[in-house]
Amino acid sequence: MKEELLMIPGPVPVLPRILEAMSKPMIRHRGDEFGRIYEEIVETLKEIFQTRNDLFALSGSGTCAMEAAIGNLADKKTGIVCIANGKFGDRFGEIADRYEADAVTTVNFAWGSPIELETVKEALENRPNPKVVTMVHNETSTGILNPAKEVGKLARKHDAIFVLDCITSIGGDEVPVDEFGVDVAIVGSQKCLGAPPGMSAISVSEKAFDLMLANKKRPYYMDLVAYKKSFGKKQTPYTPALPLFFALREALAVIREEGMEKRIERHRMLAKAVRTAVTGFGLSLFPELNEVSEYSNTVTAINIPRELTDERLRGGMRKRGVMVAGGQEKLKGKIFRIATMGNITEKEVLRTIEALEQVVI
Amino acid sequence: MKEELLMIPGPVPVLPRILEAMSKPMIRHRGDEFGRIYEEIVETLKEIFQTRNDLFALSGSGTCAMEAAIGNLADKKTGIVCIANGKFGDRFGEIADRYEADAVTTVNFAWGSPIELETVKEALENRPNPKVVTMVHNETSTGILNPAKEVGKLARKHDAIFVLDCITSIGGDEVPVDEFGVDVAIVGSQKCLGAPPGMSAISVSEKAFDLMLANKKRPYYMDLVAYKKSFGKKQTPYTPALPLFFALREALAVIREEGMEKRIERHRMLAKAVRTAVTGFGLSLFPELNEVSEYSNTVTAINIPRELTDERLRGGMRKRGVMVAGGQEKLKGKIFRIATMGNITEKEVLRTIEALEQVVI
Repeated sequence: MKEELLMIPGPVPVLPRILEAMSKPMIRHRGDEFGRIYEEIVETLKEIFQTRNDLFALSGSGTCAMEAAIGNLADKKTGIVCIANGKFGDRFGEIADRYEADAVTTVNFAWGSPIELETVKEALENRPNPKVVTMVHNETSTGILNPAKEVGKLARKHDAIFVLDCITSIGGDEVPVDEFGVDVAIVGSQKCLGAPPGMSAISVSEKAFDLMLANKKRPYYMDLVAYKKSFGKKQTPYTPALPLFFALREALAVIREEGMEKRIERHRMLAKAVRTAVTGFGLSLFPELNEVSEYSNTVTAINIPRELTDERLRGGMRKRGVMVAGGQEKLKGKIFRIATMGNITEKEVLRTIEALEQVVI
Repeated sequence: MKEELLMIPGPVPVLPRILEAMSKPMIRHRGDEFGRIYEEIVETLKEIFQTRNDLFALSGSGTCAMEAAIGNLADKKTGIVCIANGKFGDRFGEIADRYEADAVTTVNFAWGSPIELETVKEALENRPNPKVVTMVHNETSTGILNPAKEVGKLARKHDAIFVLDCITSIGGDEVPVDEFGVDVAIVGSQKCLGAPPGMSAISVSEKAFDLMLANKKRPYYMDLVAYKKSFGKKQTPYTPALPLFFALREALAVIREEGMEKRIERHRMLAKAVRTAVTGFGLSLFPELNEVSEYSNTVTAINIPRELTDERLRGGMRKRGVMVAGGQEKLKGKIFRIATMGNITEKEVLRTIEALEQVVI
């Protein structure tokens, strides 16, 4: 049986050398060897994040890191402003509601619409003393790249902590965390980094850390103050998912070998190739852009043409061995999504485009 | 270089066939294949837990599952009684404090002392309306097996939810979850189940689930109501750590092949062999027992003799390629611990005993 080609926005295909590195025998999680592995992961990720902030690797998915951000910052009196234009933006709002429903302001744009800076500005001005602003950088559910730099500036103007979900942008797109003024940035392992799912990483500025330190109601498993304390010994506070650390280290070695500049260029080129092909087939792209938004460079969201159904489209692709993603929740049946993340090459993109051509033309 | 023999209480050595199963290429986490894997894991674990309750596999360590138990049950008005006689018992208290400090009663016994039922009984009678009772079954930090059945009876008498950390007992010792009256039971992947670290599983009774459902402040990543809803589709609410699921499935296949009866017998026999050997060398076992406590059948805690130091003892073992664990926190330098968990055989235990003989005699 031919292996299925995963062109969904995570889990992405994992290179054989990474799978092999993962199957290394267990080691002591409090020993020197683990310490070196953890340190190498953290140092490499800091370069990829372009940050001088602290960074921790969590044994949990991107959602775990999103909750770590909110849960550590939410002290029940903190005003949280959640900007959303898709499923993952909404998720920040849902998490914030669990922690301090009374102090959450959501700034919602329709799924697939761009973020309007003027609206964000007004919301920040109307919310007395906003302590935290959250946004998703690359909104995977709609295929849009949101204006991180611009929103970072607005957050700084209000002296608010800026939390940016970069789960599907870091490692595949340009995300200068410090330059964008991001206090807390998050990446997932199974997206542009090309590692298996189950891990995430989170960077934390000093300003954000001070707020966390003062918060006595931090979550326990994802307590970032405990993470910082343990990092002094090159350890994690609780038993780390060792095989995923082994795999992530190898995935980061692959990234270092390619170089981030080339890697970003490849991601942009492949996403552009998908956009060019699908519009050439007469299909239309889903998200609407404005002057501060862009098409995602890691996942392309496409309207399902009227003459096709989701089942016929994705089913047809599946028959040809190519897995693409459907729309989520309210976009189910309306769009489909092709990811170009991680260590995907022209070869896989061409195979995807060929399969799509057979299905839609 | 000779591979280090891990005789610490997790991560345990992982069989090559499990490592190999783990390095399978990625699959869609919303597809049928994943659904079958997840279902197989859940069904096998239910048999091992001897439970008819719901059971979920979490992409997070045992501590994650401990927090899932407390976080889902703690509705800020729930009285929680935490019984502790070691580090992991204390951990339940620490987690409970994060969620509802005002309503936590701790029933503390010295680390290494047995749990006195009379004291627990009094605490339950003095705590008005205790909703939740927590205990650790096999207290890894001190090498004692606590009276689950008896405390289960006391909890039931007060109509309280009984949460039992079986992280290091299930899979290696007899833990009939339903018979013991355990509403929420937890196991870790990297202990007696013989899988790599990074996963845990949690069983939830209907009574416990009803309390969770009514709690609007549940944590998000470890929201067990979301887990139950997703399980209807044989999915997890957030991206699962796929390689760890592949590994756990294989580890459970190993357990089915051996059979739980034989497996428990092997664990008991190996722990007994360690106890016999160390007392034969003139060393003394750390925990004190009473009529309702036993020595742990999965980890043996031993006093470091006066003429040796922790560094000389464990360093000496390490030089001989055998990793044993030290004491934790207040027991640092006072005890050392030898685990006999997972797929360990007589061979590894003999090697450990031989190395120990050379170091202590």
